[in-house]
Amino acid sequence: MDTCFYCEKNEKLDSLMIPIVELEYSNVYLNRDQKHKGRCIVALKQHKTEYFQLDSTQNAGFFAEVTTVAKALQNLFNPGKINYATFGDLVPHLHVHVVPKYVDGLQWGAPFDDSVPKQLCSEAEYQRLVQQIEKEIENLRQ
Amino acid sequence: MDTCFYCEKNEKLDSLMIPIVELEYSNVYLNRDQKHKGRCIVALKQHKTEYFQLDSTQNAGFFAEVTTVAKALQNLFNPGKINYATFGDLVPHLHVHVVPKYVDGLQWGAPFDDSVPKQLCSEAEYQRLVQQIEKEIENLRQ
Repeated sequence: MDTCFYCEKNEKLDSLMIPIVELEYSNVYLNRDQKHKGRCIVALKQHKTEYFQLDSTQNAGFFAEVTTVAKALQNLFNPGKINYATFGDLVPHLHVHVVPKYVDGLQWGAPFDDSVPKQLCSEAEYQRLVQQIEKEIENLRQ
Repeated sequence: MDTCFYCEKNEKLDSLMIPIVELEYSNVYLNRDQKHKGRCIVALKQHKTEYFQLDSTQNAGFFAEVTTVAKALQNLFNPGKINYATFGDLVPHLHVHVVPKYVDGLQWGAPFDDSVPKQLCSEAEYQRLVQQIEKEIENLRQ
């Protein structure tokens, strides 16, 4: 099997995202590029590459967790719409980009993409975001 | 409420997609633009705009149907990876673009997008695709 950074949790993963919380089916990460404020990645814990490789319990559980993350982002940042995407042609380990979009903000009305410069944050700002999102997810799961 | 073509099933919808089958939670459509062979849209029947507006049964049921459609496309067309996206900033009625990607084919390794010309088919070809996909979904649901 090719190296998979979602499995290895190596420096490639660290360069792209920061762990927020481990849930039952998924690991939730904050995307380091925060040009869409609150953008997260929800990665299945298991190495599977298509949703039809999961059984119905895993599939439902994973998407329930994606949905909880989206709700947390809605509560915290009040986007106009949340976008969700599983691409992964070259990184096939199942993961969903959960991308808050803001009315009349960046790429509003178009698919989000990474063709514009990254917007990185200070480590303090990352930690503040991670803690906010983790706490909101925890509240929603109680 | 603004006009919603997924609710109205009007000529705007007809210009973009062709009905394949109605499932319990979703309507499945063939995308008229077939530059990614087999591209479908799975639209929630109800008018909801974020997944956290669904209860857990609806959420699980909807994503199970998305997954069945993906499996049907895999069986029929053998893509290298399937991409899944819910955008909808301007058309917020929940729908997933299910987009087969082919190794070294169009936009392989990049997010799919519609910046390249549409690839339309003859009505006969559309009907053949619709029938193939409908039959495969039916087989998978038995």
